[in-house]
Amino acid sequence: MEKPLINKLAIIGVGLMGGSLALALREKGEVAEVVGIGRGLPNLEEAKALRIIDSYTQNIMEGVRGADVVIVATPVGSIVDIIAENQKHMKDGAIITDVGSVKGEIVEGVDRVLDDRLHFVGGHPIAGTEKSGASAAFPGLYRGSRCILTPTQKTDKAALDKVLRMWQAADADVIVMETKEHDKILAAISHLPHMVAYALVNTVDGVRDFEEGILKYSAGGFKDFTRIASSSPEMWRDICLMNRAAVIDMIDRFTAQLGDIRDMVEEGDNPGLLENFERSKQARDSL
Amino acid sequence: MEKPLINKLAIIGVGLMGGSLALALREKGEVAEVVGIGRGLPNLEEAKALRIIDSYTQNIMEGVRGADVVIVATPVGSIVDIIAENQKHMKDGAIITDVGSVKGEIVEGVDRVLDDRLHFVGGHPIAGTEKSGASAAFPGLYRGSRCILTPTQKTDKAALDKVLRMWQAADADVIVMETKEHDKILAAISHLPHMVAYALVNTVDGVRDFEEGILKYSAGGFKDFTRIASSSPEMWRDICLMNRAAVIDMIDRFTAQLGDIRDMVEEGDNPGLLENFERSKQARDSL
Repeated sequence: MEKPLINKLAIIGVGLMGGSLALALREKGEVAEVVGIGRGLPNLEEAKALRIIDSYTQNIMEGVRGADVVIVATPVGSIVDIIAENQKHMKDGAIITDVGSVKGEIVEGVDRVLDDRLHFVGGHPIAGTEKSGASAAFPGLYRGSRCILTPTQKTDKAALDKVLRMWQAADADVIVMETKEHDKILAAISHLPHMVAYALVNTVDGVRDFEEGILKYSAGGFKDFTRIASSSPEMWRDICLMNRAAVIDMIDRFTAQLGDIRDMVEEGDNPGLLENFERSKQARDSL
Repeated sequence: MEKPLINKLAIIGVGLMGGSLALALREKGEVAEVVGIGRGLPNLEEAKALRIIDSYTQNIMEGVRGADVVIVATPVGSIVDIIAENQKHMKDGAIITDVGSVKGEIVEGVDRVLDDRLHFVGGHPIAGTEKSGASAAFPGLYRGSRCILTPTQKTDKAALDKVLRMWQAADADVIVMETKEHDKILAAISHLPHMVAYALVNTVDGVRDFEEGILKYSAGGFKDFTRIASSSPEMWRDICLMNRAAVIDMIDRFTAQLGDIRDMVEEGDNPGLLENFERSKQARDSL
C-alpha cells in the first residue's frame, strides 16, 4: 500500500466542512490518523461513532500535538486567534490551513503571528449544505466543487502542494488565486446575496400598512428566494465585517443596478426594462 | 347529480393557470363544458388531448359565445384590451374574471370599458410553478394556496359569489380585498424580489475586474437565490410597469434597508448587524 498523503491530521471544528474532508481523505486512504478537536462533546462523540475521526479532545493544544496537517474549520472570526494561541504545541514543519469564507484578513493575520517553523496555506472550499455538524458530513461534499487556495509570496511551495493535493484527493477542483481576488469574488457571489436576502426579508416584514403582517401571503418563490436569510446571523456578521471593503463595493454596485431598474420603472422605459431583464435571464440561465 | 356551478366556461389562455383551474373544476363536477381559446394550436391540441378542455378555437369572439364564465388568463398587459374587444360577443349576464398579478390598473381599465350587461370580478390566485403551458397544468395547483379577489363598489354581488365559489371549488383559500392592498402586498412579496434578483444577477455578471466572468464560481446558494431571474422578461416588464407606484415604493424601502446594512458594515457596528440579521432570520424562519 502507498504511503498516505497525511500521517496525522488534526481538525479543529468537526462540522460539515472538516468532517466531510476527513471522510473523503479516509475513503481514499490519504490519511492514517484523524484527531477531532472541538468544544461540544456530543458532536465529537458522534464524529467518532461515525468513524470521521479516530479520537477526540476538547483541548486544542493536546489535539494538534504531532499533527502533520492542522485544519482550522471554525468561524472566520476565531481562526487567527486559534492559530496564535496554539501554534507552540504544533510540531516543526506542521502545515496549517483553514476553510474560512474570507481570506485577506485571515491570511494577513496569520502571516503576522505565525512561527517560522510552521507553514500556513489559506483555503476556502466553496461547498456546503443547509445542514451543519458532524452528523451532516459526507465524503462527496467536495466532489466537483471549487476550492480556492490563496498562498502569498511567503508561502512554502511544498506546503501549498500538500494542501492542494489534499483537496484534490477530496475531488475538489482546486484553484489558486490572490486573497484580494478571492474576497472580491466571494463578496459578489455569496456575501452580497446574503446581505440582500436579510434586507429583503426585513423590508417585507416591515410593511405595516395593513392590520396583519404580509409575509403570510408569500408563496414558494419568496421562500426559496429568502432561504439564505435563515443562515447564521453570527457567521454572516463576522464574514461581512472581515470582508468589509469588498462587501461595501458590491452593495454599492448592486444598489446602482437596482436604481437603474427603479428609474426605468418610473420613466416607463419599456425597452430598457426588457433589455435589462433579458440580459439578467441570459446570465442566470447560463449557470 | 347536482347542477354544476358553471355550465359553459371559456378560458382565454390555456396555460398552467387556466388549465389547472379547468382540471380542478372538472374533477369536482363543477363545470359542464370547457372551451379553450388561445393562439398556439399545438398547446390547444394538447389541452384537448389532456381533457383539460372539451373544444378549442383560436377565435376569441367565437370561443366566448354562450359562456357563463370567461376566465382571462393572458399576460397582464393584454387583459383589458381582450375584454374590450370581445365583450359584445358574450351573452347577457356573463361573468368575466382574470388571474393577473396586478389588480389596480386592470380593474380600473375594465370598469371603464365594460358593458352594463356583463360582470367583472378581478382575481389573482397566488400559485404557480416554474413550468408553463397546458402540459404543466394539474388539478391540485390551487390546493391550499391563496386566491385574492378584488371587487369594487360596482361589482355585482352574485357574480362575486360565483367567482368565489369557483376558486373554493379548486380548494383555494379565497380572500377579498381592495385592489390597492393587493398591489402593495404583491409588490412586496413578489414584484420586489424579482427586481432584486434581476439586479443581483446583472451586478455579479457585471464584475469584470478579472480575466474571466465570476458567475462560474457560484455554488448552489446563488443558483437557488437567483432562480426567479430566469422568469419571463416580458411578463415582469409588464407587471412592474402596471404596478409602478407600489413597485417603486418597495424598491425605495428595500434600498433603505440595504443602506442600513451597508452603513453598519462600514462603521463595524457589530451588535447592530447581529440584531438586523437575527430579526431577518426570525421572520424568515416563521414562514
